[in-house]
Amino acid sequence: MKPPVEPLPTLLVEPIVRSALLEDLGRAGDITTTALLPADMRCTGAVVAREPGTIAGTEAAALAFRLVDPSVRVAIGRTDGFTVAAGEPVLHVEGPARAVLAAERVALNLLCHLSGIASATANLVRAVGPYPARIACTRKTTPNLRALEKHAVRAGGGVNHRFGLDDGVLIKDNHLALAGGVREAIARVRGAVGHMVKVEVEVEDLAQLSAALEAGVDAVLLDNMTPAMLREAVQAIGGRVIAEASGRITVDTIQAVAAAGVDLISVGWIIHSAPILDLGLDIDAH
Amino acid sequence: MKPPVEPLPTLLVEPIVRSALLEDLGRAGDITTTALLPADMRCTGAVVAREPGTIAGTEAAALAFRLVDPSVRVAIGRTDGFTVAAGEPVLHVEGPARAVLAAERVALNLLCHLSGIASATANLVRAVGPYPARIACTRKTTPNLRALEKHAVRAGGGVNHRFGLDDGVLIKDNHLALAGGVREAIARVRGAVGHMVKVEVEVEDLAQLSAALEAGVDAVLLDNMTPAMLREAVQAIGGRVIAEASGRITVDTIQAVAAAGVDLISVGWIIHSAPILDLGLDIDAH
Amino acid sequence: MKPPVEPLPTLLVEPIVRSALLEDLGRAGDITTTALLPADMRCTGAVVAREPGTIAGTEAAALAFRLVDPSVRVAIGRTDGFTVAAGEPVLHVEGPARAVLAAERVALNLLCHLSGIASATANLVRAVGPYPARIACTRKTTPNLRALEKHAVRAGGGVNHRFGLDDGVLIKDNHLALAGGVREAIARVRGAVGHMVKVEVEVEDLAQLSAALEAGVDAVLLDNMTPAMLREAVQAIGGRVIAEASGRITVDTIQAVAAAGVDLISVGWIIHSAPILDLGLDIDAH
Amino acid sequence: MKPPVEPLPTLLVEPIVRSALLEDLGRAGDITTTALLPADMRCTGAVVAREPGTIAGTEAAALAFRLVDPSVRVAIGRTDGFTVAAGEPVLHVEGPARAVLAAERVALNLLCHLSGIASATANLVRAVGPYPARIACTRKTTPNLRALEKHAVRAGGGVNHRFGLDDGVLIKDNHLALAGGVREAIARVRGAVGHMVKVEVEVEDLAQLSAALEAGVDAVLLDNMTPAMLREAVQAIGGRVIAEASGRITVDTIQAVAAAGVDLISVGWIIHSAPILDLGLDIDAH
Amino acid sequence: MKPPVEPLPTLLVEPIVRSALLEDLGRAGDITTTALLPADMRCTGAVVAREPGTIAGTEAAALAFRLVDPSVRVAIGRTDGFTVAAGEPVLHVEGPARAVLAAERVALNLLCHLSGIASATANLVRAVGPYPARIACTRKTTPNLRALEKHAVRAGGGVNHRFGLDDGVLIKDNHLALAGGVREAIARVRGAVGHMVKVEVEVEDLAQLSAALEAGVDAVLLDNMTPAMLREAVQAIGGRVIAEASGRITVDTIQAVAAAGVDLISVGWIIHSAPILDLGLDIDAH
Amino acid sequence: MKPPVEPLPTLLVEPIVRSALLEDLGRAGDITTTALLPADMRCTGAVVAREPGTIAGTEAAALAFRLVDPSVRVAIGRTDGFTVAAGEPVLHVEGPARAVLAAERVALNLLCHLSGIASATANLVRAVGPYPARIACTRKTTPNLRALEKHAVRAGGGVNHRFGLDDGVLIKDNHLALAGGVREAIARVRGAVGHMVKVEVEVEDLAQLSAALEAGVDAVLLDNMTPAMLREAVQAIGGRVIAEASGRITVDTIQAVAAAGVDLISVGWIIHSAPILDLGLDIDAH
Repeated sequence: MKPPVEPLPTLLVEPIVRSALLEDLGRAGDITTTALLPADMRCTGAVVAREPGTIAGTEAAALAFRLVDPSVRVAIGRTDGFTVAAGEPVLHVEGPARAVLAAERVALNLLCHLSGIASATANLVRAVGPYPARIACTRKTTPNLRALEKHAVRAGGGVNHRFGLDDGVLIKDNHLALAGGVREAIARVRGAVGHMVKVEVEVEDLAQLSAALEAGVDAVLLDNMTPAMLREAVQAIGGRVIAEASGRITVDTIQAVAAAGVDLISVGWIIHSAPILDLGLDIDAH
Repeated sequence: MKPPVEPLPTLLVEPIVRSALLEDLGRAGDITTTALLPADMRCTGAVVAREPGTIAGTEAAALAFRLVDPSVRVAIGRTDGFTVAAGEPVLHVEGPARAVLAAERVALNLLCHLSGIASATANLVRAVGPYPARIACTRKTTPNLRALEKHAVRAGGGVNHRFGLDDGVLIKDNHLALAGGVREAIARVRGAVGHMVKVEVEVEDLAQLSAALEAGVDAVLLDNMTPAMLREAVQAIGGRVIAEASGRITVDTIQAVAAAGVDLISVGWIIHSAPILDLGLDIDAH
Repeated sequence: MKPPVEPLPTLLVEPIVRSALLEDLGRAGDITTTALLPADMRCTGAVVAREPGTIAGTEAAALAFRLVDPSVRVAIGRTDGFTVAAGEPVLHVEGPARAVLAAERVALNLLCHLSGIASATANLVRAVGPYPARIACTRKTTPNLRALEKHAVRAGGGVNHRFGLDDGVLIKDNHLALAGGVREAIARVRGAVGHMVKVEVEVEDLAQLSAALEAGVDAVLLDNMTPAMLREAVQAIGGRVIAEASGRITVDTIQAVAAAGVDLISVGWIIHSAPILDLGLDIDAH
Repeated sequence: MKPPVEPLPTLLVEPIVRSALLEDLGRAGDITTTALLPADMRCTGAVVAREPGTIAGTEAAALAFRLVDPSVRVAIGRTDGFTVAAGEPVLHVEGPARAVLAAERVALNLLCHLSGIASATANLVRAVGPYPARIACTRKTTPNLRALEKHAVRAGGGVNHRFGLDDGVLIKDNHLALAGGVREAIARVRGAVGHMVKVEVEVEDLAQLSAALEAGVDAVLLDNMTPAMLREAVQAIGGRVIAEASGRITVDTIQAVAAAGVDLISVGWIIHSAPILDLGLDIDAH
Repeated sequence: MKPPVEPLPTLLVEPIVRSALLEDLGRAGDITTTALLPADMRCTGAVVAREPGTIAGTEAAALAFRLVDPSVRVAIGRTDGFTVAAGEPVLHVEGPARAVLAAERVALNLLCHLSGIASATANLVRAVGPYPARIACTRKTTPNLRALEKHAVRAGGGVNHRFGLDDGVLIKDNHLALAGGVREAIARVRGAVGHMVKVEVEVEDLAQLSAALEAGVDAVLLDNMTPAMLREAVQAIGGRVIAEASGRITVDTIQAVAAAGVDLISVGWIIHSAPILDLGLDIDAH
Repeated sequence: MKPPVEPLPTLLVEPIVRSALLEDLGRAGDITTTALLPADMRCTGAVVAREPGTIAGTEAAALAFRLVDPSVRVAIGRTDGFTVAAGEPVLHVEGPARAVLAAERVALNLLCHLSGIASATANLVRAVGPYPARIACTRKTTPNLRALEKHAVRAGGGVNHRFGLDDGVLIKDNHLALAGGVREAIARVRGAVGHMVKVEVEVEDLAQLSAALEAGVDAVLLDNMTPAMLREAVQAIGGRVIAEASGRITVDTIQAVAAAGVDLISVGWIIHSAPILDLGLDIDAH
C-alpha cells in the first residue's frame, strides 16, 4: 500500500539530527545518565502520543536514537502521515539505557514539532473536506528546517509551495511596488527565467487579476480577499491558471474560502505557529 | 541604561543566519527579484509589528540583511526585550532593493519566531506579576536553534534552565525508574560530577521530596503537583533549595502555581508551541 | 544598461572559492612566493584573454584575490557575459605581490573553466542565430559547481534546465521502463507534485508524444530525433507545450535542429566537455 | 596483480560525493522517482561505456549509489586505470529502483568526468610510447576536485606534479619578474624551504637554464621551447636534474617533444579541457 | 565493575579524529604505504606503552584505525583510566597493512597526548593521596580538543572545572578590576544568571574572602596563597562553600596545599604542559 | 628587515581560531563578563610574557580578539620568532571590555601553546649553535593544529619535516618489516611517486645505510644511533644525501649529535611535549 507520504532522503535528514544531538550533548555528553546508569544496562521504551494527531518525523526521531548508538533498535509503529489516538505508541526502542535517554529529548523535539505541523495541516485538510482546494504551506518556516517542515505538511495531507527563492517566481506586493505594475513585472520575468520555472503573481483586486491573466502566468495568489471577491476571481480565472487564496485564513474561515472554488489555500501558520503534538517516551527497565 | 537582555555573541548567531539564507537562496538565488529589479535600484523599508508583543531576534534579522549585502544599512529601533505596539517599526533598512527583498523572508522568519517566544514568555511573566516566581524554559527547543530560543526567553523576562545534557544534572522520572530511588540516584551523581555542576531532581510527592532534601540537591523539580501540594512542598523545602514547578502549566493556571511560593516555574511551550509574533516588511521605493 | 547576465549571490560563490583556496594553500601556504618576495612588495597585474571568447566567473575570480588578502584591489573590466578579443584584459589587480600570486591559480581555474562554458554556449547561441530556439544546459555538471556552471551558461546566452532532482519533474527513459508507459507515468506524477512544479517527459517517437500531450505535461523532451522527426513532432505539439530537443547535438548539427522549430535545445557538453577559455595573469612589478 | 592505479582513501572521496548528492537532491529529493516508483521496487542496472576509453572514478561512482541507500549493491567490473571498449559494462548495480535512479546522475557526472581525464592522459601516454618521457598534470584543476582529478591522471598512466602551493617550489615567470633573476630566486628559496621540498624553476632559454643548473635545483621546467631548443637543453642538463617540458603541447606535437629527450611533459589540458568519456546507466526492471 | 572513567559519546569524538586523519592524509593519502605494500597484505600490531603511565584516548585511537578502513579490527586491552607498565600493550589491531600504517600516527598522536594528560593528573592525585582534595583542570586547553582533554583529566582521577565561558560563572581578578569590588560583582551576577549556574569568585586575601562569603557564592578560588594563608582561608570558609586553591602549584608543593584542607586544587599544566606518554605501534607481518 | 618567520595565510588560521572561540563560548557566551560589565565599557590591556622565551601565534591571538568583536584593536609588539624577556608585552589590545575578556583565554591558549613550541625549538637551535645541523619537527603533532605547530617550529628557528603522509616518502622500520629490505622498498617507491616528491629512508645500521645510498634516496634518517655511529654514517654519506638524526634526543645530548656532522636533527617533543610559554593578559580599566 502506498504510504500517506514518501520519506525524505536520509542524506538530507541526518545532518540536522546529528547537529541537534551535538547541540544537546555539548562538551561533556549526558552527565546525568552517565553518572546514574551502568553502561551495560539495557531498556525498552515506547514513544507514545499524549494526544490525538497526525504523525511526522518518525525517521528523524529514529535516527536520533541510532546516531547516539547504532546498537539501539528502533521500530516505527506509525509511519509519517498516519493518525494516532492518545496513548498509542509511535516508535518502539530497545537498547542501552544510556543511549536511549541521551537521545530522547532530540528525538522528541523533532517528532513533536513535525507532528504538530502535520496535525495542524490535517485539521485544515479536514476542514475543507468537501471542496477540492488543497492546503499549501509557505516559505515562513523555521530556519534550517525547511525540508523537514515541508515534509511534515505533506504528511498532514497538504502540498508544498516554493522551497526557496530559486525554484519558482512569486511576484508579491513589495515587488510590484518597486517594479511597476503587474503587466510590466510579468513581462520582465517571462524573459528572464527558464522553461521549467513557474510564475505566480500576487493580486489584490480584479483589475490586477485581469492584467495578470492577460500577461500570462501559471498561478495567481489571491491575497486577503473576502469569499465574495474570491468567488468573482475564480470565475474570472475560469480554470485557465491555478487560483491560490492566502491571507490570515484560520480554521474557522477556511471552509468559506474553499467554497469560493480556489484550487489552493496557502497558510503560513501550519508551520510557523503550529503547537507541538505532545508525545513522550515511556521507559521500562530490563 | 541596561537593556532588557544582553545580546548573544555574533559568532554564535552568524552561522545560523548564514545557513538559513543559503537554504532560501538555493542554487540560483532570488530569481524573482533579480528578474524584476535593476541592480542599482535602492529602497528603504521598515520591519513593522502587525500586533503588540515583545521583540527578540533583531540582531539575527539585521545580520540577514547584511549578509546578503554588506552595503545594506540596518538600524534597530527596538532592541530585544522591548515591547512594541501594533504598527510600530522595529528595524529600518536601506540599501539595494534586490538584497533587501532577498533577505526579507529569512530576517522575518527569525524575528517573528523569536519574538513569538519572547512574547509568550512575557505574558507569563506578567501573569505571575505579584509573586517572586520566575519563568524558565526547558530543553524542549527547536533543533539547532537552542541558543537563540533561550535568548528569546530572556528577552521576554524569563530565565534559562539547562542549555544541554552536559551543563547540569536533572534526574527525571525515567532516570529514577532505571536507577532506583531518589536517594540512591543522588548519591551516585554526587560522586561523579564536578563542583561547578548543580544537581536537580524531579519529585512527584512529598516522600520523594523529603528523600531529595536529605540526600542533598541544589534544586527540586516539583512535577505535576496541584497548587495545594506545591504549597506543602514549598513549606517542606523551607528555602533550603530552589523550588521549581512544572507540568502542563498554562497562562490560566500559572498564577495559582506562583502563589504556592515556588521560586521557578518551567514551561516548555513558551518555546515549542509559541505562535509567531506577526511582523512584516513595508517597503518604499526610492 | 542591463548586463548580459545577473551576478550570483556572493553567499553562494564564496564557500566554493574559499575551499578552492584552502585546497591549493594546503598546510603551509604558498612556499614559493613567501620565500621569494618580501611581504611589503606590491604589484599590479591584469588577467588577459589569450583567445577570444565569452567571459564568466569574474566575481569568483575577484573573490579569490580578495579572500587571500582583503587589501588586494580588483577591478572587473569585462563583466560576465561580455565577449573579449585575444589580448584584452578582463580583470585588473593591485596589491601585495604575495597575495596576488598566491591567488592567481585559483582565480584563473575558476575564470577559465566558467568562461569556457560561456564561450561554448555562446557558440551554439550564434549557430542557431536566425531561429527562436534557446540553448539549455542539463544536470550533467561538475560535482559541487552546478550553481556556477549554470550561471556560466546564462552568461553565454543560454538558459538553465532543472537545477536538481527537486525543482522540476523530468520523466526519462529509465523512468518509463520501470514505471510503465507515458500515460501512467504522467498520471502518477500529476497527483504527487506541487503546483509550482513543471512536468516534462522524454519521448522517442510520435506515439509517445501523442500520449504525453493527451496526459498533459508542461514540456516534452524530444530525444535523439532526426530533424525530420523533430519537425513532425513540433507540428504535432502545435505550440501547446514547450518542445525541447536533445541527444548528441553538435555545433554542426544544431542549426538543422533549430530549423525544425523547437523552443529549446539542451546540450550537456557545453558544461561537461567545454574546453577552458585560455586566460592568464600578466604581472608588473612596482 | 598490481592494479594500474591505487585507490584514493575513502575518507578523501566521501565528502565530495556526499556534497554532490546534496547539491542534486536539493531540499525535496528526487521528486520524479519518488512520485513514479513504489518504494519496494528493485532494479538492476549497468553503467556501460558508450565509447572506448580509460576508466577512473569507479570508487566515487559506487559511493554515490551507496550513500543514497546503503542497501544498493555495486560491483565494479573495470577498476580505475583499465580501458574499456564501447558497450562494455563498468559497474553493476542492484537495489531499490528509487535509490539507483536518484544517484545515477551524480555517479555518472563523477565517472564520466574522471574517465575523460584518464582517457586524455592515456592518449598522450600512448603518443609518447617509444620515449621515456612521462605525462604530468598541473595545478590547472577544477576547484575542489584536485585529489580526484590527479588520481584520474594516474589512472591514465600519467604522473602528478605538485598538489598545491605548499608541497613543492616552482619558480615561474611571474616570480622571476618580481624576484630578480634565476640565480637570486633559487638562492632565496634554498635558504627558506625544508629538506623534503623539491625546487623547480621555469626557464625560457639556455642562459636561464645554465643559471639554474649552477644555482642548484631539482628540476627545470623548459617552457614553450621548440623541439630543437629542448634537445639542446636536455644536452646541457646532462641528466643532472629532471627535465620537464611544457607549453601548449598537443597530441600532435607531443611526440616531437618526447623525442627531444625530456623526462617529463606537463600538460594542463588533460585535466582542464578533457571532454568527458561518455558512459550511461542501462536499467532493467525486476 | 565500574570503569575508572566513562567514555565520551562517539558523536563528539569522531569529528575530531576524522579531521585529524584528513589533515594527515592531505590530498594524496599515504603515498609511502601505498607504494610499498600490496593492497591485500594484512598485519597485526599492538600499541605498546614505552613507559609507565595512565591511559586515555583509547576510543579515539581505535576510531582512527576504523575510520581509515572499517575492516580493521581493534581490541582495547586497557581502557581509559587504567595504568600500564612499560612494555604493556594497550590496543591490538588487525587488518589491511596499508590502513593500519596510514592511521598509526593519528592514533598515536591522540593516545599519547591524552595519556600524557591522564598521567600528569594521576601523579598529582597520588601526591595528595592522604588528603581529601581533588585535582581539577582549567580552561587552559588546546584549541578544539577541550572535550577530549577534560575526559583525560577524569581518566587520571581528576575532576573538571568549567567546560566553557557559558556553563558557570568564575569572577577573576581582571573582572574585579573592571567591575568594582567582590560584593558588587557577586550582586550583579546573582541577578543575571540562571538557577542551574554556579558562581565562583577568585580572592587573593581574607578580606576579599570574607566579602565573597557574605555576598553568597558557591565556591571561592583561593589564588596564589601560601599554605598558611590557605589554612586560614579554609577555616574562615568553615565548609560553607567549596574551597579551591590555584596558582603555580607543582608536584612538589601540592601536598602542602592539600594539607591546608582545601576541597579542590586546580592546575592548568596537567593539560597545557603535560608531556606525552610515550606509546608506539609494534607491527607483525602476516 | 626580513622577519624571523613568515606569517601563515589568514585563511588557514581563521577556521581554527573561530572554532576554538565557539568551543569556549558554548551555547550562551561569556555569562560572567556579560553579567558584570556594561556593554559600553572599554579597556586596554597587554599580553605580557611571564617568563623569557620565543614568541609564536601572535596572528592567531590577535584574530581571537578581532573575531569576537571587529572593533577590538590589536597591536602586535613582538611578531612571531622574536624573543621576549619576562615582563615584556607582546600584544596590546584596546576595545570593549566584554570582548577583550571573552577572547582572552582562547587568545592565550593559542599564544602560550605555540610560543612554548617556538621556545623549545629555539633552545635546541641555541644548543647546536656552532654546528650546521638544523632542528626539525616531525608528524607527532596535536590533531588539527599541525599547520600552526609547524609554523611555531619555524618561529623558533627550526625547519619542518613532512606536513603529512602525502608530501614526501618516509620509509620507516614498520614499512621495512612489511615490505622487505631497504633496496626492495626504495625500488618500489621510486617507480611510484612523482618527480616533486623526495624519498627518505630510516636506517638503523651502516649496512642499511649502504643499501639506501646505493638504491638512491634524497635523505636518510639515522635512527637511534650513538654519536660514534652517526659520525661513521656521516662519513659514509659523504654529503651525497641529507643526513638526519633522530631518536630520543634531548637538550643534553643534542650537541653531541650535532657534532657528528648531521645536516638535520628531528625531535618530536618540541611539538608534542613542549610546556607552554607563560603569558598573561594585564587589563587596565578606562
